[in-house]
Amino acid sequence: MTKMDIIQRSITLNRRTKGFYIVTSEITSKLPELKSFSMGTLNLFIQHTSAALTINENWDSDTREDLSDIMDKVVPESSSYRHNAEGLDDMPAHAKSSLIGPSLTVPITNGQLNLGTWQDIQLAEFRRSPHSRTIVCTIQGLRS
Amino acid sequence: MTKMDIIQRSITLNRRTKGFYIVTSEITSKLPELKSFSMGTLNLFIQHTSAALTINENWDSDTREDLSDIMDKVVPESSSYRHNAEGLDDMPAHAKSSLIGPSLTVPITNGQLNLGTWQDIQLAEFRRSPHSRTIVCTIQGLRS
Amino acid sequence: MTKMDIIQRSITLNRRTKGFYIVTSEITSKLPELKSFSMGTLNLFIQHTSAALTINENWDSDTREDLSDIMDKVVPESSSYRHNAEGLDDMPAHAKSSLIGPSLTVPITNGQLNLGTWQDIQLAEFRRSPHSRTIVCTIQGLRS
Repeated sequence: MTKMDIIQRSITLNRRTKGFYIVTSEITSKLPELKSFSMGTLNLFIQHTSAALTINENWDSDTREDLSDIMDKVVPESSSYRHNAEGLDDMPAHAKSSLIGPSLTVPITNGQLNLGTWQDIQLAEFRRSPHSRTIVCTIQGLRS
Repeated sequence: MTKMDIIQRSITLNRRTKGFYIVTSEITSKLPELKSFSMGTLNLFIQHTSAALTINENWDSDTREDLSDIMDKVVPESSSYRHNAEGLDDMPAHAKSSLIGPSLTVPITNGQLNLGTWQDIQLAEFRRSPHSRTIVCTIQGLRS
Repeated sequence: MTKMDIIQRSITLNRRTKGFYIVTSEITSKLPELKSFSMGTLNLFIQHTSAALTINENWDSDTREDLSDIMDKVVPESSSYRHNAEGLDDMPAHAKSSLIGPSLTVPITNGQLNLGTWQDIQLAEFRRSPHSRTIVCTIQGLRS
């Protein structure tokens, strides 16, 4: 018998320095209930304001280096920001986190994330010093 | 007894001029049902195309002024846009609204929004003249 | 009698070249179950990394041309990207897809999308050559 259900887990990702990183399996390995949902959504919410979550190309790691460099051009470091007590990379990190966004909602089909062939979930870390980031994961849908 | 449930409310925020504003309590004060959900998500959807919703730093108000200025640099005002009948700030406002995004999905845990320590929900108002903005709020999850 | 329910469909949009396009009715026409949900959310997830989904102005088609041009300024084409084997427009397309985002969650009220007066769902296609794009649509909510 199937019914509408929900599960929620808070997970912590490994510490990483500035860059874009594929984290799909790091996340799904901590969500054993995922396979019991035949249809649903996974909402990922990062509890930080200088990192973000996105979906992007998984094949060529060059794209992830380019993404980080492009974000530096979109929001350059500058000594003219009002908020500068935490380092030159801090205010740009806040702006990038709002541009990329703190949350992702990914469909679940037959117990798996229904990503496109070239898609993976990526952590966008915008601070140079290594940070570990906490993500609240909420699955809702039809569970068997 | 708990069961999967949903509530939805349309709320209107106070009129504001251009800038980023913390609106968490203005929103949650209008969602009395929030506390009855032990686990779930709150989806916020702004019904406008020249404002947006985001999550960002809540401690230093300087960050909110910097965010507004940074968005002006990412999408500068220009007389060369085709769409210019509603003022120089209108087309940049539309572009900024798509860059920041019209909706947010925030986890609910034990009857409260499960935000990080330094996070709050922010309204990003991109028009200079004051506007009041309507947000459709949908809570789904486990309700007691 | 009403109950919490879910439906999911994978749909393919018409092939389009670079630009922003209103696709609300192209999507909803393939979701006949939408009208049976009195309250809920529609999550749209694009399974590609060089296109995105957004909500923007539906009245003046000039805004859509401006949006495409603005995104070209935010992430210009350049021969200096590491990832360049698929054409000059490819790496910018990946970055734009993360800036605009791969998914949207839109409220449903009384069997219809609860969009603002001037809002429509838009496909942001970032590649010059025509592509058809697949979207996974998940409706959750109260169904009669």
